[in-house]
Amino acid sequence: MKFATIQHPHRRTAVVAASEQEVAFLPERFTDIEDVLRAPEDERHAAVHEALASAARLPVTELSWLPPVTRPGKVMCVALNNSANPDRIISGPDTPAMFIKPSSSLVGHGQPIRLRTDDGRVHPEPELAVVIGKQGADIAHDDALSHVFGYTILNDITSPTMRGEDTFHYRAIHPASETADGVRFVESWVSYPARYKGADTFGPLGPWVVTTDEVPDPHALRITCRHDGELVTDDTTANLRFSVAEVIAFASRYLTLEPGDVIGMGTALRTSAKGGAVQNLDLNRLGGVVTVTIDRIGTLSNPVHRR
Amino acid sequence: MKFATIQHPHRRTAVVAASEQEVAFLPERFTDIEDVLRAPEDERHAAVHEALASAARLPVTELSWLPPVTRPGKVMCVALNNSANPDRIISGPDTPAMFIKPSSSLVGHGQPIRLRTDDGRVHPEPELAVVIGKQGADIAHDDALSHVFGYTILNDITSPTMRGEDTFHYRAIHPASETADGVRFVESWVSYPARYKGADTFGPLGPWVVTTDEVPDPHALRITCRHDGELVTDDTTANLRFSVAEVIAFASRYLTLEPGDVIGMGTALRTSAKGGAVQNLDLNRLGGVVTVTIDRIGTLSNPVHRR
Repeated sequence: MKFATIQHPHRRTAVVAASEQEVAFLPERFTDIEDVLRAPEDERHAAVHEALASAARLPVTELSWLPPVTRPGKVMCVALNNSANPDRIISGPDTPAMFIKPSSSLVGHGQPIRLRTDDGRVHPEPELAVVIGKQGADIAHDDALSHVFGYTILNDITSPTMRGEDTFHYRAIHPASETADGVRFVESWVSYPARYKGADTFGPLGPWVVTTDEVPDPHALRITCRHDGELVTDDTTANLRFSVAEVIAFASRYLTLEPGDVIGMGTALRTSAKGGAVQNLDLNRLGGVVTVTIDRIGTLSNPVHRR
Repeated sequence: MKFATIQHPHRRTAVVAASEQEVAFLPERFTDIEDVLRAPEDERHAAVHEALASAARLPVTELSWLPPVTRPGKVMCVALNNSANPDRIISGPDTPAMFIKPSSSLVGHGQPIRLRTDDGRVHPEPELAVVIGKQGADIAHDDALSHVFGYTILNDITSPTMRGEDTFHYRAIHPASETADGVRFVESWVSYPARYKGADTFGPLGPWVVTTDEVPDPHALRITCRHDGELVTDDTTANLRFSVAEVIAFASRYLTLEPGDVIGMGTALRTSAKGGAVQNLDLNRLGGVVTVTIDRIGTLSNPVHRR
């Protein structure tokens, strides 16, 4: 099944795909896909059945899309999780490294990515995203996929200019037994992602959440990114360094996963035959429309508005 | 007024301080301080009046405290925002640098900070925290404090071990007109804070949210951090590099602030007369109880549980 969250003139509502062309409204208590995935399975199935049998429908071309989960407890993204260019990493962890995007950064399919000149360079990062259906901590690898409700698309919009601005070269305080005050200073670099990853509209998400039964292997999906129709990235989720199950098992050792949480699996990086790289797509200079397509999941497209 | 959120045997509820010794239950629809601050002012005042006049009371010593806002849209923290030791920074931004802690990291007053051996070094970071009452983007400096509902305490628990583990030394992809594929590689460092700042229980918050009318100057508050009763940090919010209004104005240019959002204003760092530094307090080695006190705001105390 494919679910979405839309703004219908006077209310926000969850819908289910009735065909390639139409969606059907879920009962009014389902205001968001988080309501759908938190519902007991039999109640969810009954609601879908009722919607497909008798609810009002709308053509997909007329929808005002919202992020499928409008206010997830967290949007957690895995950094540098692509095997396309491991030579880029001089040193780094052997486990998934992650950051958090705030829910206020999310926008739906078709909504604009709004940029200002002083945001500097801004590029798209096309990613498969997991939507968690079941709470869990210390989830075993073999049980990990049972915590997934479905898959969607995240465009992890990033400003490397702001990343540079919000990086400190500094003296970290480390404990030391040999000094009078018990500390010593160690030169370090640390970067803080709230702005460069988390600014408003830096999180296009959707359009659909596709349930796991329709995605038998999340690591065999072609993923492309186009700018104004031109193919820039042409990759496959087979190139993910850490799998969905590995990320869920590792992350949940530290951060409890909650229903509605979104996990961005890391940027698809392999450049298309025509060359180029998403990091080269300076949306702030180019404007235009950026489109991410993942097999079986859908197409997420957002125009750039320079304000 | 002082508000808190507590777990009462069978439900979560917001309460208001009736005296130094007692809290009164707010009406049942207020399940969390987010419900309190989102309510229209007259409705909130009526609810408080009703609670103080006739609602059941509980002694503060018998409360099971939750984070005042249990699932904020975001917890945004300002890094390195203390003027006590500017010599630590070799280079860095002239504006607030920020990161996001997930709501799943929050715990209430008295709840344990749960650590495992392989979390490595873990230290407390005592901070004044702002609770946003009114949505806003591009908030003017002079209007910024009108967006604050109240103040609370955040203990921004941090693992420098995990910070080191989740730092990459890598070749960032930058655009370049002079190369055949249009990119060049620039050696950079980047660190990802989801684990080292965002692990479960790394966000003790509370106990109270104290409304702004009781905190005439948020930059004149003594802030201390004690470990097992021993004074470690003795600082004042006068040492904040960027003020509450400056942080709100700057941050809201990029990230819309929403009712219930929490902003951690940055770690109080000035060491007590006895010396030491919070970075030296390795809670994973020492265990014990860590206590943060801020004038007018309260005392947040959490035991360490090594699991």
